[in-house]
Amino acid sequence: MSRSVLYMSMSLDGFIAGPDDGPENGLGTGGEQLHAWLFDGDHEARGGVGLPVLRTDAASVPVVQEMLATGAVLTGRRTFEAAGGWGGDHHDGVHIEVFTRSEAGDDAVQGPNVRYATDGIEAAMARAKEAAGDRDVMVHGATTAQLALQAGVLDELEIHQVPVLLGAGRSLFGAPGSPHQLDLVRVIDAPGVTHLRYRVVG
Amino acid sequence: MSRSVLYMSMSLDGFIAGPDDGPENGLGTGGEQLHAWLFDGDHEARGGVGLPVLRTDAASVPVVQEMLATGAVLTGRRTFEAAGGWGGDHHDGVHIEVFTRSEAGDDAVQGPNVRYATDGIEAAMARAKEAAGDRDVMVHGATTAQLALQAGVLDELEIHQVPVLLGAGRSLFGAPGSPHQLDLVRVIDAPGVTHLRYRVVG
Repeated sequence: MSRSVLYMSMSLDGFIAGPDDGPENGLGTGGEQLHAWLFDGDHEARGGVGLPVLRTDAASVPVVQEMLATGAVLTGRRTFEAAGGWGGDHHDGVHIEVFTRSEAGDDAVQGPNVRYATDGIEAAMARAKEAAGDRDVMVHGATTAQLALQAGVLDELEIHQVPVLLGAGRSLFGAPGSPHQLDLVRVIDAPGVTHLRYRVVG
Repeated sequence: MSRSVLYMSMSLDGFIAGPDDGPENGLGTGGEQLHAWLFDGDHEARGGVGLPVLRTDAASVPVVQEMLATGAVLTGRRTFEAAGGWGGDHHDGVHIEVFTRSEAGDDAVQGPNVRYATDGIEAAMARAKEAAGDRDVMVHGATTAQLALQAGVLDELEIHQVPVLLGAGRSLFGAPGSPHQLDLVRVIDAPGVTHLRYRVVG
């Protein structure tokens, strides 16, 4: 059965980007460390045209393979734009649903498989799941994750926990959210990152 | 060599207590889940007179044994008072250094091995290390941890990561802190908790 899975790299102190992140400063001061595990290894994986070539350690390969086997992407707009919209293709040309609270606008990154969702998180997730078919939906972005959790439409979380304290930055769970019970269903201890897979159970 | 080690139970979203924690409400709403791993197992361990009898799963036993083998406790005052000062004895009557920014006052929990430190985190840690001899120092409390990190006197972190999202509460790393590089040196995946041991390397 198709699941919706949040994939995010996070520091031990809960940040997904360092201070002063933005189009001019990428993942913020120190934030690039959160993605080092994706580029510091020997095992190459290719996504779509707009995703950099990934080079991970062997231990992280299954996680990357799962990520690239998802059948659709549901992403928050900030995350989407910070990544340059992956050139409109995260991997294999799968549908990209961009959750936003305002209209796309003229300067929005477009693509044949990109759709801006302004009708709420449940509708956005429903379209992403429809597009994914029997494959999983890759979820991305802090606000999108929080809203999906609150709406009960997030099935799992794959947290790539990175052994660093950034001290400040953009927090994954910084805004007050809803309480949820989780089951830890997998731990992969890879060099430079611990992949923690949780199922949302309540 | 004696190390200073932060021991804290933390939710995936970074909380060490739920909302509205305090003397009347313990670990706050939902916060007791963070300590369930200490009481839901079959393996009994006893600390000092004021520490409840611990009953953990077999996988968590080494972590508890290490904690109870420390030679001194350095704790923030809030954490100390929330625990009733452990009756003045956390385990084996070891020295308890209580970090505080105000004077102890008449209603402060006292004990023959309890000392209130008002002369800063470095002095407090120095006394705790002196008292611990060649054993480790158990560090406790969010503010104390942050100040020890900033002062460069925290050697390791043992984070008991609990598979729950509390959504709100008291955050371990909520206040802006200093950036630090960590090495993950041990992962113990136990029922209801993942013990993550980090060494502070920069």
